[in-house]
Amino acid sequence: MINLRNDYNIIGDKLIIEELLKYSDHKFVGYGEDEVSKELNNIVKEKVGKDVDTYVLPGGTSTNVIGLSQILKYPYEAVITVSSSHINVHETGALESSGHKIIYTPNILGKVDIKRIEDTYKLYSDNHMVMPKALYLSNATELGETYSIEELKEISNICKKLGLYFFLDGARLPVALESEGYSLKNIASLCDMFYLGGTKIGLPYGELLVIVSDELKNNFKFLLKNKLGLLAKGFVGSIMFKKLLENDYYLNLAGKEIDKANTLRKELKDYLIYPNNTNQVFIKISYNLYNKLEEEVEFEVWEKYKDYLVIRLVTSIMTTDEEINNVIKLIKKE
Amino acid sequence: MINLRNDYNIIGDKLIIEELLKYSDHKFVGYGEDEVSKELNNIVKEKVGKDVDTYVLPGGTSTNVIGLSQILKYPYEAVITVSSSHINVHETGALESSGHKIIYTPNILGKVDIKRIEDTYKLYSDNHMVMPKALYLSNATELGETYSIEELKEISNICKKLGLYFFLDGARLPVALESEGYSLKNIASLCDMFYLGGTKIGLPYGELLVIVSDELKNNFKFLLKNKLGLLAKGFVGSIMFKKLLENDYYLNLAGKEIDKANTLRKELKDYLIYPNNTNQVFIKISYNLYNKLEEEVEFEVWEKYKDYLVIRLVTSIMTTDEEINNVIKLIKKE
Amino acid sequence: MINLRNDYNIIGDKLIIEELLKYSDHKFVGYGEDEVSKELNNIVKEKVGKDVDTYVLPGGTSTNVIGLSQILKYPYEAVITVSSSHINVHETGALESSGHKIIYTPNILGKVDIKRIEDTYKLYSDNHMVMPKALYLSNATELGETYSIEELKEISNICKKLGLYFFLDGARLPVALESEGYSLKNIASLCDMFYLGGTKIGLPYGELLVIVSDELKNNFKFLLKNKLGLLAKGFVGSIMFKKLLENDYYLNLAGKEIDKANTLRKELKDYLIYPNNTNQVFIKISYNLYNKLEEEVEFEVWEKYKDYLVIRLVTSIMTTDEEINNVIKLIKKE
Amino acid sequence: MINLRNDYNIIGDKLIIEELLKYSDHKFVGYGEDEVSKELNNIVKEKVGKDVDTYVLPGGTSTNVIGLSQILKYPYEAVITVSSSHINVHETGALESSGHKIIYTPNILGKVDIKRIEDTYKLYSDNHMVMPKALYLSNATELGETYSIEELKEISNICKKLGLYFFLDGARLPVALESEGYSLKNIASLCDMFYLGGTKIGLPYGELLVIVSDELKNNFKFLLKNKLGLLAKGFVGSIMFKKLLENDYYLNLAGKEIDKANTLRKELKDYLIYPNNTNQVFIKISYNLYNKLEEEVEFEVWEKYKDYLVIRLVTSIMTTDEEINNVIKLIKKE
Repeated sequence: MINLRNDYNIIGDKLIIEELLKYSDHKFVGYGEDEVSKELNNIVKEKVGKDVDTYVLPGGTSTNVIGLSQILKYPYEAVITVSSSHINVHETGALESSGHKIIYTPNILGKVDIKRIEDTYKLYSDNHMVMPKALYLSNATELGETYSIEELKEISNICKKLGLYFFLDGARLPVALESEGYSLKNIASLCDMFYLGGTKIGLPYGELLVIVSDELKNNFKFLLKNKLGLLAKGFVGSIMFKKLLENDYYLNLAGKEIDKANTLRKELKDYLIYPNNTNQVFIKISYNLYNKLEEEVEFEVWEKYKDYLVIRLVTSIMTTDEEINNVIKLIKKE
Repeated sequence: MINLRNDYNIIGDKLIIEELLKYSDHKFVGYGEDEVSKELNNIVKEKVGKDVDTYVLPGGTSTNVIGLSQILKYPYEAVITVSSSHINVHETGALESSGHKIIYTPNILGKVDIKRIEDTYKLYSDNHMVMPKALYLSNATELGETYSIEELKEISNICKKLGLYFFLDGARLPVALESEGYSLKNIASLCDMFYLGGTKIGLPYGELLVIVSDELKNNFKFLLKNKLGLLAKGFVGSIMFKKLLENDYYLNLAGKEIDKANTLRKELKDYLIYPNNTNQVFIKISYNLYNKLEEEVEFEVWEKYKDYLVIRLVTSIMTTDEEINNVIKLIKKE
Repeated sequence: MINLRNDYNIIGDKLIIEELLKYSDHKFVGYGEDEVSKELNNIVKEKVGKDVDTYVLPGGTSTNVIGLSQILKYPYEAVITVSSSHINVHETGALESSGHKIIYTPNILGKVDIKRIEDTYKLYSDNHMVMPKALYLSNATELGETYSIEELKEISNICKKLGLYFFLDGARLPVALESEGYSLKNIASLCDMFYLGGTKIGLPYGELLVIVSDELKNNFKFLLKNKLGLLAKGFVGSIMFKKLLENDYYLNLAGKEIDKANTLRKELKDYLIYPNNTNQVFIKISYNLYNKLEEEVEFEVWEKYKDYLVIRLVTSIMTTDEEINNVIKLIKKE
Repeated sequence: MINLRNDYNIIGDKLIIEELLKYSDHKFVGYGEDEVSKELNNIVKEKVGKDVDTYVLPGGTSTNVIGLSQILKYPYEAVITVSSSHINVHETGALESSGHKIIYTPNILGKVDIKRIEDTYKLYSDNHMVMPKALYLSNATELGETYSIEELKEISNICKKLGLYFFLDGARLPVALESEGYSLKNIASLCDMFYLGGTKIGLPYGELLVIVSDELKNNFKFLLKNKLGLLAKGFVGSIMFKKLLENDYYLNLAGKEIDKANTLRKELKDYLIYPNNTNQVFIKISYNLYNKLEEEVEFEVWEKYKDYLVIRLVTSIMTTDEEINNVIKLIKKE
C-alpha cells in the first residue's frame, strides 16, 4: 500500500532521531532553560536578523492557541481569519475554549481575500461586539496554496494600519519557504509571531514558535506552562530543531516533498483541480478510478460530487520516486 | 559535574529511542488511531485486567489538567488535594485557567491526611460554594513518599462513599510500583483515572493516561484535542510506551533509580531528613558542606534555615554507581 | 423629541414598580429561596402545564450565556444558530468567553433556514471539530420576525432527531406571544429551555428563564452563582414577574406595543421594507427625509445605501398615539 | 418573627424606590450611556476628588469577578486574599471559572495579617507558579470588622511596593464609612479599584464600582458586557445610586444600621464574641437559649460547639428599636 494520506504518517527523519542518540549521555537543565535551547535561539536570531524569542511547542494546535492567547489578553479580543482555517474548523473549538471568538471571512482556495480584511475589521465598532486584535493566516494553507511575498507585504501593512497583530501558522511553512522570494528573514520582517512546523517535515513532534514583536514576548513562559505547552525535557525539541535548521536542512527536506509533488502535478495535469506549488496535490477523479485506486493507495477524499470526487495526494519526506511513478501509472492506465 | 538535580535531565533511555528508529520505514494513521496505539491499549488492558482506555499525553501538567477536566464538567465542580500538590503549586494556575477551583488540605510529607478528606468534603454544602467531585493525589508524592496499598484502599473507599472520583497523578508512579504489594492491576482497581509517567523514567516525553471508570471515557478525544493534548504523531508515544511496558521494563528502570537512592540513604543515614523508598533523597547539611558540594554536584536546595539547609538528591536511570560513591565521599569527608 | 429608538428606553411599567413598594415592609429569604419565587414558579408551572424550573436572571446576555452553559457541559460542545443572532453578534464574545464555539448559518430576515439545520449539524463528524449540542434561536428575532407554530414544531422535531437541545431566546417573546396560535404552553412543549423577557416589556431589569427538560435542571443554581447571575435579592425579580404574569398582564403590555406598531405599518405601508407583526417597524426613507426626521424623532439607522436608508422605529409600552401620529405626519408630509 | 438574618432581606429603602417612579415618564439612552449615569459619575468624581470611572453592576459577586478580571489579564495572574474572603469561599468558584487562581493567607477575624502580605507575595518566584497581581480585601469584612485608616495606608503602600493592584470589596463599605477617619476620598486615594455596595444598604440591586487607576479604565465596558454585567437599563442603577449619594444618604442609612447594632452590643456585652463596630453582632449562646430564640427570631448560626453556639444578628435599614429591644429581652431573660 502506498501512503499519500498526509505528511505526518511517519516517525520522522532518521538523521534527526539519530541526533537525539548523540546526546544520550548529556545532562540538561529542564523546561527549555538549557544550553541547546539558547543555541537554537541564537541560530534563529541570526537567520532572521532580529532579536526574536523562540520556543518549541508540542503541536500545531497548541502553538496556534497559546500563541494567539499571548496576543489576545482580554476575552473580548478576537482574531480575524478565513472560514477554512485550521483554528476555525479543525481544532475542536480550542481557541474558543481558551475564551476568544474567531471572526472569519470567506476563503479563496484557503487564502484570505486581502480586500476584505479592512471591511471585516470595520464591522466591529462598539462594546456590544468583540474587538479584533489579530489576523491569523496559514502559509501554506490547508489547500497547499502560498501567499506571494507581495501579498504578505500588503497584508502586513493592513495589519499595521488597523492595529492588528499578524500571526502566521507555519505548520507547513517549510514547503512554503521553497517559494520565490521567501526566506525566514522575510517572514520575520512581516509577521508579529509565526512558527516553523516540525511535525510535517521530519520531527516526531514539535513546532518552533518565533515571537518577533517585543510587546508579545513578556512572560510567555508563564502562559506556556499555564496553557499546557511547556515540556519538562525542552532540550529534546531544541536538539531536533537545531539539526533541522543546520545548513538549511529543512529546505532540503521540503524540496524532496515538493519534487515528488511536482512530478505528480506534471504527469497528472489533466486531473489537477486546485493547483499549487507545495506538497499537496488535488485531483479530480471518477468513482470508477477511485474504487481501483483505493485498493493500492491511501489518500484523503476531499470532496464528493455526483459524478466525480476530489482527492488529495500528499507527499512526505519518505515518499519515493517509485511510489510516485506507481500512483501515476495507476491513474493514467484508467 | 555530577547531576542529581532531577530525573528528567536526560534525553531518555537508549533502548527506547532506538525503538523509534526501528519503525522509521513504517507509515501510520495519525492522532492515535494507529495499530501500535491499539496494541498498547491491549497490553495495558491485560496488565490491569480491566477494559480501560489509554492515551499518551505530552507531559504531566497536561495530563493532570485534561484528565481532571474530563471529570469536572461544570465550572462549579472542584477537586480536593493537598497543599503541596503539583496542580496546586507548580502548574502556574493551569487547572484554574481551565475553570476549576482547587480545594487543598494540609499535607504530611506530601501525603494527604486521610482522616481529613471527609471533613473537607463536608465543608461544601450549598450553592454558594464549589462542589467537590474529585480527589487528586500524587504517588510517589513531591517528597518521594508513597502510599501503602492499605492507605490507597482506604482513600478509594472514602471516595466511593462521597461520590468523588479518584485521580492519581503517576508522574512518578514507576518508582512507586516498586513498593510492597503494588501492581498496575492494584492501582487500576482503586482509581478512576491514573497515569504512568514516562518523562521521569526514560522517555523524551509522554505520560500514559489510563481511564478506568466507564463514565469517564466518553468523547475523551474531543477534550484531548480541545485542551491541546492531542499530537498528530500519536504513534510515537505509543511505540515508546509499548517498549517501556515490554517485560515490565519500567520496573527495571525504576529499580535502577531506587537502588542508587538506597545506597545514598544507607550511607548518608545521619543526614537523612525525609525518609522514603523511592528515587528522591532529602538530606540536611551545613552551609559549609553546601558550599563545597555545589562545586561538584548539581542538586536542588529544598529549604533554607539559619544553621542548615535541606537539599534534594534525585537519581535518574543514567545515574552511575561511581557518581553515587563520589557524592557520598564528598559529603562524608566533611 | 419622540423616542422610538428601542423598547428599553424607560424605567418600566408603573404598576410593576409600584408592586415593589407594596412589599416594602416584608422580609425575605435571599437568593431566590423566598416564598414569592416559589409562587412565581407555581404560576408558570400552571401556565405551561409542566413541572418546569424557573429563575429570574439580570439580563438577556446573561440568560443566553448561563442557559447555554447549562446545556453545553464540555468545551468542545457547540451551539448552532444564525449569523445575525444576538449571541453571535451583539454579546461581545460572551459565549466564547465561557468556552464554547458558535456555529452559524445564514439568516433569512433574522430567522433560520429550517432546511439547513440538519446539513449544518452533519458537517461536524469527528473529534477534530466541535460537537453541536444545542440550537439557539430568537423569537421574535432581531428584525421583529416570528416563527409560526408550525415552523417551531418542525424545528423542535429536527432537534429531537439530531439530539440537539432547543434553546429559545425570548428577550422579545412577549410580543411574539401575540401571534396566532401562540401560548406559553405551546412554547414550553417545543423547547428545552426558553425565557420570557422582562426588560423590553416593562421591568427595570430581569428575564424569566424556564427550564423545561428534566436533565437540564440539575444544580442550575450552582452555575447561576458561578456565572454571576444569582442576585441576593432574588425576590425583587420574582415580585415583578408575578405581577407581569398576573391576568396575562404581559399580553396586555405587548398588545399596546404592537397596536402602535400596526398603526405605523398601516399608515407607512409604502415605506415598509421588512414587514413583521411585532413592535419593530423597518422603513426605507430618503436622506432628505432622514435629515428632517432626526430633528424630532430618535431612532436607529439600520442600513445605509447610496440613495436611501433603512431606519428602525420601535414602540415601547410608553409610546403614545400622539407620538405615533406625529411621526406618521412627519414622514408623510415629505 | 423578627428577622435579623442579614441586611439584604428587604426590597430596599422606600425613598430610593420612589425615586424610580419620579423618572417613569423619562426616556433614556441604554447601557449606561445616559445622562443620569454621567451625573452619577460627576458626583462620585467630586466626592473622591479624582477623575474616576464609575459603573453600576448587578451584584457583589459580579463586581468582584469582573473588577478583578479587568486587573488580571493573563490566566497565570493571581489575586492574594485571606482564607475567609468572599471570592474564596462564597462565590462558587466564580473567579476560578473566569480563569484565575486565588492565593489565600490565614485571616484574623476576617482581616488580613498585614505582615504576611509581602511574605506570601515572595513565595511566587518563577514561571511554574502563578504571578500575584492584585490584593483583594473586604471592608467591612465577613465578620463585620473594619480596617483602620492607618492599616489601609500600610496595605496600600505594600501593594505599591510589590506592584500589586489593591481591590477593595465594598459590599459593606457603607457601614465601614461610619468608622473614624473614613471618607470616600480616603478610600479612593488608597485603592486602585473599589465599590460601594448598594444591595446591603437599601437598593433592590446594584453595586457602584469605582475605577481609580487610569491603567485599569481601558475598555472596561467591553469586559462588562463580555462577563455578563452590563444591563440594558443602566440608568435604573444610576438613578438609585444618585439618590443614595445625595446628601450622603448612605451614611444616614448606615448610621441607622449601626445604631441598632450598637444597642445590641451594649446590652448583650456579656454574650459578645467577635466585637466590631458595624452592623453585624456575633454572640455566644447556650443551646437552651438557642432553642427558645429561634422560635421568635431569624438569624444565622455561625459556629456550633459542644456546649454553645455562635450566632450572628444583623441589623438592616428596616430594623426597628422595638425589634432590637425584644431580642435583647428574649436573650437576657434566659
